Amino acid sequence: MPQTRLDTARILAARRLIDPVFLDTPFYRCEALEPGLGCAVHIKLETANPVRSFKGRGTEVVASLLARAGRPAVVCASAGNLGQALAWSGRTRGLDVTVVASRTATAAKLDRIRALGATLELVDGDHEVARERAAALAGETDSRLLEDSLDLETCEGAGTLGWELVNAGPPFDTVLLALGGGALATGVGHVLKELAPHVEVVCVQALGAPALAYSWRRRRVVTTASADTIADGVAGRFPIPAVLDDLLLVADDVVLVREESIVAGMRLLLDHAGLVVEPSAALGVAAILEDRDRFAGRSVATVVCGSNVDIAAHRRWTGGAQAYACRPAPRGAATGP
Amino acid sequence: MPQTRLDTARILAARRLIDPVFLDTPFYRCEALEPGLGCAVHIKLETANPVRSFKGRGTEVVASLLARAGRPAVVCASAGNLGQALAWSGRTRGLDVTVVASRTATAAKLDRIRALGATLELVDGDHEVARERAAALAGETDSRLLEDSLDLETCEGAGTLGWELVNAGPPFDTVLLALGGGALATGVGHVLKELAPHVEVVCVQALGAPALAYSWRRRRVVTTASADTIADGVAGRFPIPAVLDDLLLVADDVVLVREESIVAGMRLLLDHAGLVVEPSAALGVAAILEDRDRFAGRSVATVVCGSNVDIAAHRRWTGGAQAYACRPAPRGAATGP
Repeated sequence: MPQTRLDTARILAARRLIDPVFLDTPFYRCEALEPGLGCAVHIKLETANPVRSFKGRGTEVVASLLARAGRPAVVCASAGNLGQALAWSGRTRGLDVTVVASRTATAAKLDRIRALGATLELVDGDHEVARERAAALAGETDSRLLEDSLDLETCEGAGTLGWELVNAGPPFDTVLLALGGGALATGVGHVLKELAPHVEVVCVQALGAPALAYSWRRRRVVTTASADTIADGVAGRFPIPAVLDDLLLVADDVVLVREESIVAGMRLLLDHAGLVVEPSAALGVAAILEDRDRFAGRSVATVVCGSNVDIAAHRRWTGGAQAYACRPAPRGAATGP
Repeated sequence: MPQTRLDTARILAARRLIDPVFLDTPFYRCEALEPGLGCAVHIKLETANPVRSFKGRGTEVVASLLARAGRPAVVCASAGNLGQALAWSGRTRGLDVTVVASRTATAAKLDRIRALGATLELVDGDHEVARERAAALAGETDSRLLEDSLDLETCEGAGTLGWELVNAGPPFDTVLLALGGGALATGVGHVLKELAPHVEVVCVQALGAPALAYSWRRRRVVTTASADTIADGVAGRFPIPAVLDDLLLVADDVVLVREESIVAGMRLLLDHAGLVVEPSAALGVAAILEDRDRFAGRSVATVVCGSNVDIAAHRRWTGGAQAYACRPAPRGAATGP
């Protein structure tokens, strides 16, 4: 059992703090995807809830604990999904929620944050600039700063999803997890490594935003000067050291995928599973598309982690002809620094 | 308590015969839909399972009972969803499944029936012709004939969905149900009328295939010479007398909606809920669009009953400009004969 910062007993206890609308999400084999992917594919669907991503699991824990402690104000930086989830969880409990986001974040996400009554502050620059501003703002206003992936509630909230996967009596030998800040990967990975250690945990990041993948490979934090991917939910540049330490314990592999594979994954999920997903949620399918031989004949579970996408962009990505058809990766493209 | 053919205790017992992958489906409020609809909207999502519709609930019951009884062969007529579900349930239990469908049925549905290993027989003509042929075929082959909506397993299987709605502790005062042959409407309606009688049960049929709606209004079976709607899952012409009797006991109202409202509903569900649905699954939203005043300020639950749609058609319906924008119904259009 790896000694991450997470605790399985606490993850189980966290389930009692989370509104049931976020728990026990659908988990099913989707055979219609399989001819295109060459392996058995199981979907864990985290989009059929009021915030359309898995992030509600973590924010429910945070908001419950803040409400109990009588702390009414909380600030987070977000690419959009965490902010939307925190706005939802905070509203239910009468908390004062402020979300800091990049002005270039996905409009659909920003609209929902506003609609849920949170204060939204937009910054020039990317998600890392938003993180800096959120930290400063929390200090100025004496609010709780919620830091995605660093704060254990966000990881252990995601861990409840891992527990559900294990509890389903794993029909899978591999799990594919989108890798952004690391909350999903370390949360689910921790539970799998403790309760189903035979399952290979493969994390997937976009080649255009590879900082945490590179860090995992070098076993030390590697930052990047920029991030350039349509997978807005996973486009960080500054990995958090404590999260990297956990990731080193739970990830069996971290792979990188190209933009055209992400788009091909979104299209497959639409055409054969009837699912609208945001780019980050297609990372697992993209990883299979990039390396069919590796997954051939295996039984894979992939977490469809969010569906907050601008529909016009989704239509453009998935409706085009074969401009983005998946080609074999150029040798070395996905092997990193 | 209405004396329908259904039995709530048997519905609860049926849950134990159904693979859990079809049970306890997501039920959540979808606020992003509400500005467009003018009422609180809760989604019961029946598409996140291996057959992408609610029909697995009923076919699991049928297939379980047949397997126990040692009857290995079953035949049904289907517009596609029942056939796909029966193919799935039968395969699991080693049954020999034959599905009879119209040659003009949705290709995506027919493809999945074949992929699941069922024998598929196509007939010239519509669903009613397929029903005749299935009955003949069952006689010829000494197979069980599964008749959707007539056979209690199909209604009581759908009833398990109604039980879940009630069990969620209804935050809704109205439930909107697609009306085709009547299994969904009588199954869910029975449970609601028994356990939550204050909830208004509104069934929704396509104006292009209104036979059961007209029958409900006249309190006697009315057939139609043709059916013309994109809502292929509900396009029957010959209502079943016993089903009409049950529907008369459980439906508070039956409304009819135009094709352009069904398309507008599909588009709303895509744009604001991120859901790909087949036309039948948009009937509830279409009913709200056609009569906003009626539902204004109410709290509505609608069952998203299937997502088996040809994606190219879905893209055409939902991607077009405002060709199908919802207009007020011409006076009398939805009031029937």
